[in-house]
Amino acid sequence: MSNPSLLILPGDGIGPEVMAEVRKIISWFGDKRGLEFDVSEDLVGGAAYDAHGTPLTDETMEKAQEVDAVLLGAVGGPKYDNLDFSVKPERGLLRLRKEMDLYSNLRPAQCFDALADFSSLKKDIVAGLDIMIIRELTSGIYFGEPRGIIKEGNERVGINTQRYTESEIARVARSAFELARKRGNKVCSMEKANVMESGILWRDVVQEVHDAEYPDVELSHMYADAGAMQLVRAPKQFDVIVTDNLFGDLLSDAAAMLTGSLGMLPSASLGAPMANGRPKALYEPVHGSAPDIAGQAKANPCACILSFAMALRYSFDQGEEATRLEKAVEAVLADGVRTADLMQADGVDPATTSQMGDAVIAKL
Amino acid sequence: MSNPSLLILPGDGIGPEVMAEVRKIISWFGDKRGLEFDVSEDLVGGAAYDAHGTPLTDETMEKAQEVDAVLLGAVGGPKYDNLDFSVKPERGLLRLRKEMDLYSNLRPAQCFDALADFSSLKKDIVAGLDIMIIRELTSGIYFGEPRGIIKEGNERVGINTQRYTESEIARVARSAFELARKRGNKVCSMEKANVMESGILWRDVVQEVHDAEYPDVELSHMYADAGAMQLVRAPKQFDVIVTDNLFGDLLSDAAAMLTGSLGMLPSASLGAPMANGRPKALYEPVHGSAPDIAGQAKANPCACILSFAMALRYSFDQGEEATRLEKAVEAVLADGVRTADLMQADGVDPATTSQMGDAVIAKL
Ligand SMILES: CC(C)[C@H](C(=O)O)[C@@H](O)C(=O)O
Ligand SMILES: CC(C)[C@H](C(=O)O)[C@@H](O)C(=O)O
Repeated sequence: MSNPSLLILPGDGIGPEVMAEVRKIISWFGDKRGLEFDVSEDLVGGAAYDAHGTPLTDETMEKAQEVDAVLLGAVGGPKYDNLDFSVKPERGLLRLRKEMDLYSNLRPAQCFDALADFSSLKKDIVAGLDIMIIRELTSGIYFGEPRGIIKEGNERVGINTQRYTESEIARVARSAFELARKRGNKVCSMEKANVMESGILWRDVVQEVHDAEYPDVELSHMYADAGAMQLVRAPKQFDVIVTDNLFGDLLSDAAAMLTGSLGMLPSASLGAPMANGRPKALYEPVHGSAPDIAGQAKANPCACILSFAMALRYSFDQGEEATRLEKAVEAVLADGVRTADLMQADGVDPATTSQMGDAVIAKL
Repeated sequence: MSNPSLLILPGDGIGPEVMAEVRKIISWFGDKRGLEFDVSEDLVGGAAYDAHGTPLTDETMEKAQEVDAVLLGAVGGPKYDNLDFSVKPERGLLRLRKEMDLYSNLRPAQCFDALADFSSLKKDIVAGLDIMIIRELTSGIYFGEPRGIIKEGNERVGINTQRYTESEIARVARSAFELARKRGNKVCSMEKANVMESGILWRDVVQEVHDAEYPDVELSHMYADAGAMQLVRAPKQFDVIVTDNLFGDLLSDAAAMLTGSLGMLPSASLGAPMANGRPKALYEPVHGSAPDIAGQAKANPCACILSFAMALRYSFDQGEEATRLEKAVEAVLADGVRTADLMQADGVDPATTSQMGDAVIAKL
């Protein structure tokens, strides 16, 4: 049997730096645990635009469709701010999500014990926090038609369309209920059903899927604005949150920031099972390309490393190895090793990106 | 000259209770400061639905168009959850906003010194916080067409449309720049221009209005997801935030919760000047109808009282009287008077709604 295949797309900014550490980790699993991967690498985002005039070539898109999992660093940067919408770095990422049909985006917001002090929230509010936000990732206002800027009389008019079909909602709801069963068995669905018809359909379909297939899971509904409030007020009330693409974008970022350690948070974007039974999958850190610190060896590779841990769990059925890697990261934090983003006081020298990666390997 | 006119719409849940305290305050200003108002009262939301089968009658709508300012309590409640979309309590409020063309929604997020401990955030992150969120209130996905739930083949499809014209963006941008000039002179505009064309137009128009009319104001742009993060991480970096209807809904609620005292936060919704020079205006607390505590004399009337203070300032050019009222509320807090929502420890008996109102009057 051939090795499972990984396509690595480091992207822009700190993407390549953090991905270099992940490659070390991948090699370690090959050398020490007999988990070999066929790794290939390619361009995405601004890097792809610079080389090919497009943020994702058709060839790269094809490769992404063929591999067992894609690992992505980050895309974007001020250099590309004035590019035409259709070739912005983000379009590369959005094309991957859409064409691979990665409808279920798992965004854990987890507060690491060693880092609880680092949150802007009071320690008792966030210590031990462990919530999972499931964001719909291939539909909604990100992709709905019609869209664009048109001219009406003398005026420009900007238009986007939120559009959700019943089956789009049902499949992401299912993935939330499945996940909840392996965790705290509680799902809170968020929309604006008091204002938007697409929110009414969202609420109804989530409830129907629940009643027909997952009556054992505790389900509640909350308006997204109240959800934003409750995340700030008492985030530990949540277990799994399921919401649409746009609300998920804001709410998962707010939730990530609650933990105080954005540089620690991974994500998985999953689609339907392929012929080999594995889901289509893309893994990426929640943080962005951080152009302000790129090239300075300051970036925290942990979010990207933990994204690979999610790959081990969700794509390769290696839950135990994933846990091993996660525990290694926690142990490094417990030892007080910190990249610059995790430091509050001056005095100590922060670890560089590669020192952090090496520390994780030492713990493995 | 006749007295300025006020239409009071107490609405549902705790709305009538908090509004009763505001009426005491209004009387005080008439008796002691010679500020007489012609006050009328009417129904909105579930209360209007119960009486008339609609959350806002045409007669009430007409009255709202004629008065100098509307004061609203809150709308909604579980009793109305299963009503048809078109007669839900919220539609009454949305009709008022839309037909009065109240495009500029001012939502201060202010942390009261006496309450800084009450936030879920660390004290140094929120103490002294004073930001103003300007939310566009009459357009965007709340009102765009087409909308609805349609049938496509066997499937239901939920549709809403985000739609912004250049002039809709320009006028709310102007109101943000005007306000910034009276405050810290800084505006941060938030959208998702990396994903939505309507966000590109938003960003461009805000920049154009700035460059042509307000070059003295410091302007920055931020993606709304990053904005949600930064509000949690370091909210004091902001002075005025301007954003669209939907983002404003979530971001202003998150910002409100940062202060830890939702029961304290007022809002103003302003439109174009009327013949008498006053803007069309509606004032309402940020909190909702809180059906769980309705009828128990537990509600905090301060948000509604401070909404009346905003009316004094923005509709009646009584900035000094507004400040007098705001200072009275602060003094009451400094004395340790607390409604139940502002109490952390047991032991002390909380003030009732009317005790809180009376305490404010005593300070005036
Ligand atoms: C980069 C951008 C297109 C993306 C999004 O808006 O989805 C990012 O914010 C995210 O959350 O993954
Ligand atoms: C009650 C509801 C329609 C309203 C909104 O979504 O605008 C509320 O959340 C608000 O923020 O004023």
